[in-house]
Amino acid sequence: MPPRPDLPPHPLPADKDLVLKVIPMPADVNANGDIFGGWVMAQVDLAGSVLPSRIGQRMVTVAVNEFIFKQPVRVGDILSFYSSVRRVGRTSVTVDVEVYAERFHDQGRFVKVTEALLTYVAIDSEGKPQALPENAQIMAWRQAIQRNAEAAAPTR
Amino acid sequence: MPPRPDLPPHPLPADKDLVLKVIPMPADVNANGDIFGGWVMAQVDLAGSVLPSRIGQRMVTVAVNEFIFKQPVRVGDILSFYSSVRRVGRTSVTVDVEVYAERFHDQGRFVKVTEALLTYVAIDSEGKPQALPENAQIMAWRQAIQRNAEAAAPTR
Amino acid sequence: MPPRPDLPPHPLPADKDLVLKVIPMPADVNANGDIFGGWVMAQVDLAGSVLPSRIGQRMVTVAVNEFIFKQPVRVGDILSFYSSVRRVGRTSVTVDVEVYAERFHDQGRFVKVTEALLTYVAIDSEGKPQALPENAQIMAWRQAIQRNAEAAAPTR
Amino acid sequence: MPPRPDLPPHPLPADKDLVLKVIPMPADVNANGDIFGGWVMAQVDLAGSVLPSRIGQRMVTVAVNEFIFKQPVRVGDILSFYSSVRRVGRTSVTVDVEVYAERFHDQGRFVKVTEALLTYVAIDSEGKPQALPENAQIMAWRQAIQRNAEAAAPTR
Amino acid sequence: MPPRPDLPPHPLPADKDLVLKVIPMPADVNANGDIFGGWVMAQVDLAGSVLPSRIGQRMVTVAVNEFIFKQPVRVGDILSFYSSVRRVGRTSVTVDVEVYAERFHDQGRFVKVTEALLTYVAIDSEGKPQALPENAQIMAWRQAIQRNAEAAAPTR
Amino acid sequence: MPPRPDLPPHPLPADKDLVLKVIPMPADVNANGDIFGGWVMAQVDLAGSVLPSRIGQRMVTVAVNEFIFKQPVRVGDILSFYSSVRRVGRTSVTVDVEVYAERFHDQGRFVKVTEALLTYVAIDSEGKPQALPENAQIMAWRQAIQRNAEAAAPTR
Repeated sequence: MPPRPDLPPHPLPADKDLVLKVIPMPADVNANGDIFGGWVMAQVDLAGSVLPSRIGQRMVTVAVNEFIFKQPVRVGDILSFYSSVRRVGRTSVTVDVEVYAERFHDQGRFVKVTEALLTYVAIDSEGKPQALPENAQIMAWRQAIQRNAEAAAPTR
Repeated sequence: MPPRPDLPPHPLPADKDLVLKVIPMPADVNANGDIFGGWVMAQVDLAGSVLPSRIGQRMVTVAVNEFIFKQPVRVGDILSFYSSVRRVGRTSVTVDVEVYAERFHDQGRFVKVTEALLTYVAIDSEGKPQALPENAQIMAWRQAIQRNAEAAAPTR
Repeated sequence: MPPRPDLPPHPLPADKDLVLKVIPMPADVNANGDIFGGWVMAQVDLAGSVLPSRIGQRMVTVAVNEFIFKQPVRVGDILSFYSSVRRVGRTSVTVDVEVYAERFHDQGRFVKVTEALLTYVAIDSEGKPQALPENAQIMAWRQAIQRNAEAAAPTR
Repeated sequence: MPPRPDLPPHPLPADKDLVLKVIPMPADVNANGDIFGGWVMAQVDLAGSVLPSRIGQRMVTVAVNEFIFKQPVRVGDILSFYSSVRRVGRTSVTVDVEVYAERFHDQGRFVKVTEALLTYVAIDSEGKPQALPENAQIMAWRQAIQRNAEAAAPTR
Repeated sequence: MPPRPDLPPHPLPADKDLVLKVIPMPADVNANGDIFGGWVMAQVDLAGSVLPSRIGQRMVTVAVNEFIFKQPVRVGDILSFYSSVRRVGRTSVTVDVEVYAERFHDQGRFVKVTEALLTYVAIDSEGKPQALPENAQIMAWRQAIQRNAEAAAPTR
Repeated sequence: MPPRPDLPPHPLPADKDLVLKVIPMPADVNANGDIFGGWVMAQVDLAGSVLPSRIGQRMVTVAVNEFIFKQPVRVGDILSFYSSVRRVGRTSVTVDVEVYAERFHDQGRFVKVTEALLTYVAIDSEGKPQALPENAQIMAWRQAIQRNAEAAAPTR
């Protein structure tokens, strides 16, 4: 996660939910004095689980499809985690998570530090994958994904 | 990470280094009673950093290219992390990490629980990416990668 | 923090800032299985420090003026911390912090679990209290407090 | 918690019980290098719960009535927590907690760093407040409180 | 640490110092539900370092000469650590540590759960052992050890 | 644990099992900046429990018979824990644990930092010591111990 201080602050995503907002502590640093990358991953996994849990079933992480560290995280940063549902499968939900840092003494200026794509699967009491219910939450996600796909498609 | 108990135990990789061997504790469980996926990610990041650090430069995680949870991890498992270098770039090193679990009371029988691909980049004192040195370690990795590519190529 | 399940869900405060949003883990429970009250206090102290740090000076906690546990917090709750500045003194800032819980599988329904009033003081490099600067942030807080006081005053 | 090094060391309270004696570790510091105020609050909550638990019922924290940080706590301090019962209600017990620090290399010299007043309530298995039993412990506390009140009353 | 519930409660040692008093939390349990033995060892090491640090030099643990787990420790126990100096060498100090548990709801009844003998050595800024100073603290310990040896010697 | 940098690197033990391989983090340091001795003890206890657990019974630590800190452990070290069974009693198993450190940037060069001897006892569901089973694992250990004793005996 090499810093690129030349990048302008990133606007916060309007179409995602704020699912977590945490402040790393000195106990979370690595030997370099930056916040340990593994600590960030653990928080992203927790943040990513928030939307899938709205289905009302037990969901577990099956894959991190992508995880990019754009900038280092430091003690004294306030981290905001934004997430949206990107794909709904038969038994799984894929979400993105974007992490923005504000410096403690420079609040209001957000820098994107991490982005990730994670997949969670619904499991039954024996831990086997099971079909997602076709409830209102699932349908709302499917429609939003459809709308976004259409909006992104090239028009002729 | 839904369990698939029908899978046979996996043989340990002979061509990778054992870089970490840890025992998760009850404090590391999630609300389901399984070991928290984020804790596993944090350990994988730490394990993945072992080989790149042999170059002798400060290396930081820039990306998780892939991360698959194949089986749940439980309290009382002993986890062995195997790693090898898969790609050497100008400023970065990509490694794979495979995690095998033994049950505390069934040691010697290994089940692969997680596999991941992570990229680490060399940075200078200001945190900017810098070229890797062409030292013996780097050259040994390049040769091993070349040999593996040739061995894997179809012969005619 | 005895639960009173008869209470209706509380509307979220529109006039406060969301300063922290965290998910307690099983490692944070007390011997009763509820989240340890001391863990909640620690998070409230961290949440309360966010607004005072906007002044740009080193601020430390000097007092908890009030702290009420209204409902127990459980593993699997998502906790949202809202804060506003209630008083600006010569060297100190007093903030309130309200904590709302959503159940992981019942998101969108908020229950107020804790409210607190804490005072932070600006200190110099030797740790002695020092006067707050009369900067834009301080003036904005003073005006908002004044407006609220007038709005709350009985009119004749 | 601005330090006031001019204050003389405080004598230890003879009429309170030593309920906890702990040594904070480097992992407990905040970004300033002092021990995190929230960590101190968590320990005070734990210390305050010791006397109420002597009643033999499940007790939970309902309020922090007052909490004053008088001096910063540092890595290498040994912290002694003294507590006494200040009020016995129908369902609740209010205790004070005073925290004294000794420097590791200057033991025997105590400085009061924190004092707090906390209320714990007895709850039943459903978490509802329940009346305290009129057992020997409760009666002993009531008598001690009565004696102290009389001793403190002005005589004419 | 198999429990022997037939043992009578142990009187607290009058000739040792109370150096630590802590309450283990659910996060400290092992897979059996008892408090993790390694957590107890860590606390004993911390407790044992209190008396040697009175010399005023940097002291580090060099050996655990003996460590016996007599009874399991459980969540909800209050642990009191008593220590005394048993031997003063040229560069090292050997202390014993005895740990007594009270159940949260059965305070005042102490059961000895652990006893240990540990040696700490004084080191200089480069980490090399250095001679202890012949200060008042050292001399007081030497005299107390001498008195105890004479009291324990058989008289004829 | 005073360092003695003049000592040559120690060859790894060929007749012991690698039971744990961990990397201490900055959160594990003591006030001196070295890794906290108690943290090392906790890891050694965990490492020592690996071989005894192969018997298939619930085993608990009863004694640390010896524990020597030979060199300090630092942030950035990779610690390898080797263990072998040294004694099999009626209800207990005694193991040794040797800990070797590699510096992160000087891997392949091992320095022995700690060695310990610990005893674990088999307990039943009520926590009472119970006889070990005479299974294949136990017999294999007894034979190996016998062979080692004969190999170590002076020949005439």
